[in-house]
Amino acid sequence: MTRPDPTPGPYDAVVRVKATSLCGTDAHIYNWDPWAHSRIHPPRIIGHEMCGDVVAIGPEVTLVKVGDYVAAESHITCGHCFQCRTGQAHVCRNYRILGVDRDGSFADYVCLPENVLWQTPASLPPQFASVQEPLGNAVDAALAEDLTGHTVLITGCGPTGLFSAAVARTAGAATIIASDVSDYRLDLAKQVGADYVLNANTHSPEQMLEAIHEITAGEGVDASLEMSGHPSALHLAFAAAKNGGRVTLFGIPTGPIAFDLANEIIFKGIRVHGITGRHLFSTWYRLAGLFKAGLNIAPVITHTLPMNDYAKGFELINAGQCGKVVLFPSRA
Amino acid sequence: MTRPDPTPGPYDAVVRVKATSLCGTDAHIYNWDPWAHSRIHPPRIIGHEMCGDVVAIGPEVTLVKVGDYVAAESHITCGHCFQCRTGQAHVCRNYRILGVDRDGSFADYVCLPENVLWQTPASLPPQFASVQEPLGNAVDAALAEDLTGHTVLITGCGPTGLFSAAVARTAGAATIIASDVSDYRLDLAKQVGADYVLNANTHSPEQMLEAIHEITAGEGVDASLEMSGHPSALHLAFAAAKNGGRVTLFGIPTGPIAFDLANEIIFKGIRVHGITGRHLFSTWYRLAGLFKAGLNIAPVITHTLPMNDYAKGFELINAGQCGKVVLFPSRA
Amino acid sequence: MTRPDPTPGPYDAVVRVKATSLCGTDAHIYNWDPWAHSRIHPPRIIGHEMCGDVVAIGPEVTLVKVGDYVAAESHITCGHCFQCRTGQAHVCRNYRILGVDRDGSFADYVCLPENVLWQTPASLPPQFASVQEPLGNAVDAALAEDLTGHTVLITGCGPTGLFSAAVARTAGAATIIASDVSDYRLDLAKQVGADYVLNANTHSPEQMLEAIHEITAGEGVDASLEMSGHPSALHLAFAAAKNGGRVTLFGIPTGPIAFDLANEIIFKGIRVHGITGRHLFSTWYRLAGLFKAGLNIAPVITHTLPMNDYAKGFELINAGQCGKVVLFPSRA
Amino acid sequence: MTRPDPTPGPYDAVVRVKATSLCGTDAHIYNWDPWAHSRIHPPRIIGHEMCGDVVAIGPEVTLVKVGDYVAAESHITCGHCFQCRTGQAHVCRNYRILGVDRDGSFADYVCLPENVLWQTPASLPPQFASVQEPLGNAVDAALAEDLTGHTVLITGCGPTGLFSAAVARTAGAATIIASDVSDYRLDLAKQVGADYVLNANTHSPEQMLEAIHEITAGEGVDASLEMSGHPSALHLAFAAAKNGGRVTLFGIPTGPIAFDLANEIIFKGIRVHGITGRHLFSTWYRLAGLFKAGLNIAPVITHTLPMNDYAKGFELINAGQCGKVVLFPSRA
Repeated sequence: MTRPDPTPGPYDAVVRVKATSLCGTDAHIYNWDPWAHSRIHPPRIIGHEMCGDVVAIGPEVTLVKVGDYVAAESHITCGHCFQCRTGQAHVCRNYRILGVDRDGSFADYVCLPENVLWQTPASLPPQFASVQEPLGNAVDAALAEDLTGHTVLITGCGPTGLFSAAVARTAGAATIIASDVSDYRLDLAKQVGADYVLNANTHSPEQMLEAIHEITAGEGVDASLEMSGHPSALHLAFAAAKNGGRVTLFGIPTGPIAFDLANEIIFKGIRVHGITGRHLFSTWYRLAGLFKAGLNIAPVITHTLPMNDYAKGFELINAGQCGKVVLFPSRA
Repeated sequence: MTRPDPTPGPYDAVVRVKATSLCGTDAHIYNWDPWAHSRIHPPRIIGHEMCGDVVAIGPEVTLVKVGDYVAAESHITCGHCFQCRTGQAHVCRNYRILGVDRDGSFADYVCLPENVLWQTPASLPPQFASVQEPLGNAVDAALAEDLTGHTVLITGCGPTGLFSAAVARTAGAATIIASDVSDYRLDLAKQVGADYVLNANTHSPEQMLEAIHEITAGEGVDASLEMSGHPSALHLAFAAAKNGGRVTLFGIPTGPIAFDLANEIIFKGIRVHGITGRHLFSTWYRLAGLFKAGLNIAPVITHTLPMNDYAKGFELINAGQCGKVVLFPSRA
Repeated sequence: MTRPDPTPGPYDAVVRVKATSLCGTDAHIYNWDPWAHSRIHPPRIIGHEMCGDVVAIGPEVTLVKVGDYVAAESHITCGHCFQCRTGQAHVCRNYRILGVDRDGSFADYVCLPENVLWQTPASLPPQFASVQEPLGNAVDAALAEDLTGHTVLITGCGPTGLFSAAVARTAGAATIIASDVSDYRLDLAKQVGADYVLNANTHSPEQMLEAIHEITAGEGVDASLEMSGHPSALHLAFAAAKNGGRVTLFGIPTGPIAFDLANEIIFKGIRVHGITGRHLFSTWYRLAGLFKAGLNIAPVITHTLPMNDYAKGFELINAGQCGKVVLFPSRA
Repeated sequence: MTRPDPTPGPYDAVVRVKATSLCGTDAHIYNWDPWAHSRIHPPRIIGHEMCGDVVAIGPEVTLVKVGDYVAAESHITCGHCFQCRTGQAHVCRNYRILGVDRDGSFADYVCLPENVLWQTPASLPPQFASVQEPLGNAVDAALAEDLTGHTVLITGCGPTGLFSAAVARTAGAATIIASDVSDYRLDLAKQVGADYVLNANTHSPEQMLEAIHEITAGEGVDASLEMSGHPSALHLAFAAAKNGGRVTLFGIPTGPIAFDLANEIIFKGIRVHGITGRHLFSTWYRLAGLFKAGLNIAPVITHTLPMNDYAKGFELINAGQCGKVVLFPSRA
């Protein structure tokens, strides 16, 4: 699809894309599944994880200047709703998503409001700068409460789950246990800091819970990060949390799931945090701080491809044989 | 059933019961339902909500003295587990419950460890002093986060739901909406401070949600307190909470319930608090402060009966035609 | 001073002032004290507490429309600094204050950015609507942590101290103790809900502390709200707080004050909250909720005057013989 | 001084000391300064940082058994006051301190209540196990709020300041700036993870603040940990904190210090945390987790000496030429 290169409105900036990465959402669209069919109105340029250089700005722009190296928050929020006016813009009631509700970053240029651009240090390579958006999800999931010195279970080692393991490692988690159905992904989990990995294909839920109790001296974990959306992983996340512990929910199930609220949440005095988006912009600041603290996400970026090879990237995602796939525009 | 009057161990006190109130748990036992069958090992004196006068103490007791007017925390906690040692004894892994795991308060005398006794001011009548235990549940449910100036939905107006409405009123909630299937109980809800009541028998879930949005100018509520355990009330609690809001779960469902986690919790950025017991003993202190602040629970105490008429009390509970039923020992 | 009536910029609104109230800051300017001399650059229309009707809007305005009844947040924040971008705009590094850094509300009309205007229900009389700005200070001071069921000391019963007492009352504080040097103001404190008042002119600091301990059964208070800036009140605030309690600092001292940090803060494990401005805009929303919950500030509004009598208002303030003084424009 | 070896009461354990470390408090006693003169009632065995093996237990003891390797919480709390009953035993109103109010650990054997003993893994060498008590102070100071991804200033690099730097490093602080007057100690700070060090003898307060602003791109730090008690360090801690930031106070000043509350705390919206003791026992659990997360305190343990050489240890402390000094009993 070809679109004329964008020109900025008064508070907008045009960014020349340096890298853009693939998200599960993009795969849903690529696969044109029922969700995509109901949500996306073609023609639409997809892509919402990106970084690039500012090449043009509108007359009122002050947050960035031409030449700045920036990433983008993908939620363009309304600024006027209760949530936006009370520091909770990440759950804005009217947000529009880059690459879903407006043209996105699988392009040479993208036009964005200045207030979603994030100044990124030149020292951060484009493949890392581009994935700051999903990394922000992982930060919010992992650090919904302080992890330092705490034990943590991460169920699901897709890219965001892997990012959350890396965040937990940098945050000084005592013990990180990761589960997934793929040995390939569990190996990546080890590379970003998981102390123990459990394959849900080779262990029954009971065996996994037993292993977690053995690792935690019978206590269970302080925090479970549910990053898969899979029913058995969800139940494990609650079962593994100790009394008074917490569960953060990030993975999206494909349908309703039955819970025994009494035993899974109530009698244990569990706190649950539903995680969506990233706190604007405290999570982005924190992310910058995490990189300074030594956050290592390199093992998660398993593939970099020219943008024209996007189909190959989606095939890797569909096969589960990748961490994060980053595309680079192939300019003449 | 007759038992010899208890004599106190070194750290115990014997309390002469002045009032003891009926809980849903007691009704389960009275009705000898499957839960009771599996949990209770007869012979057992039931009853765990009570107040009375200390009539004897063991040699090491220092927290109370003979003549003190006390209520009782019903959870006898181990003091040694992770939860007990970190200020979370309300989710002690080894607690034993008065009237369930040891003989309770449907008796003339009950023997208790000094550290579960709560000094109660003489100005608090026995029917109020006795219900401090379930009132503590309501405090934890209502005040899991600060309610002052916030809008709140309470689904379920059994005694603890009604108590939570009274607490919300005293705490300065902006607007209190209560739902139940009983007009009798909704009338009690109004008496303790509900601004709006919704009968789930005469309104569909959609109509209830519409009414809540109309009351809250389309925002939804800051906090939902789920006090019923009923599936449709649970879904309403999540649907009514605004993005970034919170849901406290106290009501116990009778079985598994299916949730659409994505839309009910995750995309809304909801926080969920599982509520069980009461914080030991910050909730008890707070409760004392709430009474000073004018907490009005009188409408909830709908029936007082001689202890020998306990069967009549359980019939009222089974028929849903009561708030709290309090029994008074009938001494010669 | 006469200025041409303002015309709105693209994101501005012009408000016809219905009421504007006097703040201590205005008195500093009226008295032209050293602070005013250094801070204010005449000519300047002062006044930053106000309400009125929107009479004109710029072409991009969407938050208000002509005819809306609004109050104003007095801090015009930059929107770009770390604080503004992380939900802490109340401590924006670049804010400009209405009536200090730009022309204010002691005028018939005032022009303001739409995003500082606050929709106010028609049911709130102008003298209450105007004081929402300082009332927001009181909300932040009182509710820096949850007050429900807690004991509180308020040192200093100027208008904001009185407002904080009213807020504490609505929030369900267990016991409210207020101190001041003026019986006139202590009487107002009783009217807005103080349970006990202590006159620092007739009680020594030791006597006041003794009285507080007697009231609180030797525990001290959960929260001290320091609203005076006076050295002996400040020391009392710390001395009265129980171990593990909190002190909020709002009153501005006239110079440095010596503290014994070890005994006043450290060994007691005290938390201190410096309070300035109001959280934007969660405090405003909460304030609206407090009014619904029955917040009673009427006794604090002791004087209403025509705007031309402003000098009389400042004399009342200088003499300490008033709560809040509200001016009404005297239109032909 | 020789005392008969202790025999345990019913809930006590006798511990054979393996290591005991020197605290500033011990140096005050050794130097017999005015504080010691007023607080200590000789004869008294001092020492409150220790580890050892349980060699005898009372008949009611269940938390430890003979042969266990334990460290000791130094505060023996009452268990009955408001603070103890609400999860704040670290500010118990009646605590007694090991080696101050009762005989301590500069001895072959020490007798302690079971509930202050902390099971320590055999893998932790005695010189590390012994210093867990002051390390707990550092944990509470550093983690009063979450440090992950945040910038931090540590003023004062005595042993507890150094420990707090190590904790901040493990917790994933973005940038750690440490100040002291001793290059020796600043070098230790670098070894435990400080990114930048500032010597207050060679930099004026203005120069230090300027350096901090340069390091933090003009923002100031998210958190200041004041670990020295020195007036100029205290003022720097407040000046360096960004608007909306926090300051934890741990260092004990020798006398009153004058503060400009308006500019140092109030207008900046600062939160202050007074730090004393350690949360019982959540801090101890967290500490165990921090060791698992890789906490490196080895550089802080600069000297190990036979117990009989204690005088040499105190000389090192008085000269400031040490980190932590640990004594080992010299048994035959």
